[in-house]
Amino acid sequence: MINIELEKAIKLMVKSIEEIKETEEIKLIEAGGRIIAEDIYAPMSNPPFDRSPLDGYALISEDTKGASRENIKKLTVVECIFAGEYSERVLQRGETVRIMTGAKIPKGADCVIRQENTNYGQDEVEIYEELCEYDNYCFAGEDIKKEDLLIREGALLTYVHQGILSSMGISKVKVKAKPRIGLIVTGDEVGIPGQQLRNGKIYDSNLHLLYSRLNEFGLKPIIAEIIGDSAEKVGKRIGEIINDVDLIITTGGVSVGEKDILHNVLQLIDANRVFWKVNLKPGTPAMYSLYKNKPILSLSGNPFAALTTFELLGRPVLAKLSGNDNLQLKQVNGIMEDEFNKPSMKRRFMRAFFNNGKVSFHENKHSSGMLASMIGCNCLIDVKKGTQKLGKGDNVNVVLL
Amino acid sequence: MINIELEKAIKLMVKSIEEIKETEEIKLIEAGGRIIAEDIYAPMSNPPFDRSPLDGYALISEDTKGASRENIKKLTVVECIFAGEYSERVLQRGETVRIMTGAKIPKGADCVIRQENTNYGQDEVEIYEELCEYDNYCFAGEDIKKEDLLIREGALLTYVHQGILSSMGISKVKVKAKPRIGLIVTGDEVGIPGQQLRNGKIYDSNLHLLYSRLNEFGLKPIIAEIIGDSAEKVGKRIGEIINDVDLIITTGGVSVGEKDILHNVLQLIDANRVFWKVNLKPGTPAMYSLYKNKPILSLSGNPFAALTTFELLGRPVLAKLSGNDNLQLKQVNGIMEDEFNKPSMKRRFMRAFFNNGKVSFHENKHSSGMLASMIGCNCLIDVKKGTQKLGKGDNVNVVLL
Repeated sequence: MINIELEKAIKLMVKSIEEIKETEEIKLIEAGGRIIAEDIYAPMSNPPFDRSPLDGYALISEDTKGASRENIKKLTVVECIFAGEYSERVLQRGETVRIMTGAKIPKGADCVIRQENTNYGQDEVEIYEELCEYDNYCFAGEDIKKEDLLIREGALLTYVHQGILSSMGISKVKVKAKPRIGLIVTGDEVGIPGQQLRNGKIYDSNLHLLYSRLNEFGLKPIIAEIIGDSAEKVGKRIGEIINDVDLIITTGGVSVGEKDILHNVLQLIDANRVFWKVNLKPGTPAMYSLYKNKPILSLSGNPFAALTTFELLGRPVLAKLSGNDNLQLKQVNGIMEDEFNKPSMKRRFMRAFFNNGKVSFHENKHSSGMLASMIGCNCLIDVKKGTQKLGKGDNVNVVLL
Repeated sequence: MINIELEKAIKLMVKSIEEIKETEEIKLIEAGGRIIAEDIYAPMSNPPFDRSPLDGYALISEDTKGASRENIKKLTVVECIFAGEYSERVLQRGETVRIMTGAKIPKGADCVIRQENTNYGQDEVEIYEELCEYDNYCFAGEDIKKEDLLIREGALLTYVHQGILSSMGISKVKVKAKPRIGLIVTGDEVGIPGQQLRNGKIYDSNLHLLYSRLNEFGLKPIIAEIIGDSAEKVGKRIGEIINDVDLIITTGGVSVGEKDILHNVLQLIDANRVFWKVNLKPGTPAMYSLYKNKPILSLSGNPFAALTTFELLGRPVLAKLSGNDNLQLKQVNGIMEDEFNKPSMKRRFMRAFFNNGKVSFHENKHSSGMLASMIGCNCLIDVKKGTQKLGKGDNVNVVLL
């Protein structure tokens, strides 16, 4: 298919691939940012036992009936337990156990008196107030009940989950395997940073840009290479790596010039082109193919175009492959704070800054070569085809980066 | 000092420490998320030469005077250059160079005609339009000019910076060294996940919670241990590691009970307590000390309290040590969408959900033990001391997590 809408392109890509089925069991403490591969239910209650929320004395509430500073009751202190300790004892009438914050309340006791309302007695303690059943009493399972659903399959593991799972005694979790990504930057003009730049060449932007962005998504490519403009070379390399990766992303060579080699590459390796050219700017000539059932997303070589179409087309593919909905495009509404007075003949994505519902331009450079002006931008304005101008106060659709 | 305000506590901590001076030079491609240690200026212009923005013919605009489809002008094609190539030639009147997108415009040429407005001639080409000087002409330095400031000392390196620095031929960057953090969880009651839980004990939350949160900040602790309630042991361990770390964070043992050992620990090692008890809930008994000029931040053992005070007190310390302003507390205003009807005798931080200026409670559990209810929360409401209730529509201060 040629010249399709973005939404159609996304639908075609997502339909053509499946979520990666592999999972791995890894240490909980290192699992932050990973996607959970199965529903996890609480294997125990938390707290695991009834416990004291304060330093005091565990006792039987009946024993405090009528107690006050004027009418002191006295109880025999039979034991002292700190957090982490426990008593085998079953408390009898007239007895009390000195108990510290977090310690397990002994059997028989039905409440805890705050130490400030006693004389802090060691063998015998004076009780200065009357208590009801379950006063100052934390029940087992108050935070989490055994069998509670702790985290759903597909959730992104955060530090709060890690704390909670740890409190359940869980030390390993099953997470989804990450998609293995191969990144290939084509173009005879692309020089390698750190090396001498030859006349007529420019240094790479796309490899660093996309590698780093994938890294920010937690999806560092396993292969990342700059290859020239030889269709044979690029085709050969794709053939070599296709079985080791779940997705190949290429930049460059997708337009209609003589050196737009990706068309030849696909023919050479006998890949199946799903679409070419998406009705948007920048990055129109984006292409998507399948080779040995693996997706190849081919983006324009212009850095801003590569970046824009990577976000628009790449994220939905990554979300599907990795089962990570956090990678889906985040589309919100915004109100323009600035104007833009050029008509847009095609649908166009413009870099901008989104803050609290308001959209402003960071700088007034919108040429697709202007990578520097991306600094400080955090969204793309989705400018509809045929828009004459964007005015202050206009409502716009925005894709958050 | 005892019983101080949060703002005073932050001021004291920040004053007591210095930003880490060490820097390291690392590969640009792996430097995402690091803090840049020096201003970086553009070592070259980008593009490094005048180049063609399209496929066409570079020529001298004078030669097109009066040209149209009716009044065709003809030029001799003297060379053909693709992106990455260049010509030594100085173009003469009557000559043209076939040029592809991104290729360097040869000397003498002052514009480029779009190939669609020619007959695509190989040796001689027909020109169908009149051009002006610098039509379809990209100037060297259009994106970045040599000596431009590319990134400031103290900036967080993102993928856009990485793409830009790469396009400048830069392959290594000087970044600030990360603070080395030691995390010590105290408490005889704390069991290790993955091991059998003994009666009266609970599994660790704090080690996993704070380690994982620090990891999210890019500051994985270099030491993370669970130690019991022996002041001698804890003191000994702090003594052993103090020279290898820039900051120690402890949890537990800071209240006033018999097992609140941190007070003894500080005496044993002869550390200097800067403050104890901050006027807020949860986590009031937070403590801050200096030992061998290194900061020790000691938080309450209750997980939600530890988490809250880690954010409120820990982030400013981390921001200062690492020279990373992104770690500073992010305070914003919000409008309450829910009610909370309990009076707050002390200043109180309540977990909540912030979205587009609106603040809602995620669940109605506010006991400080309820770690599970932190899931889905992304902010803390700063409830002023003496607040009787929070009503729908009330303006509140919020700390974003």
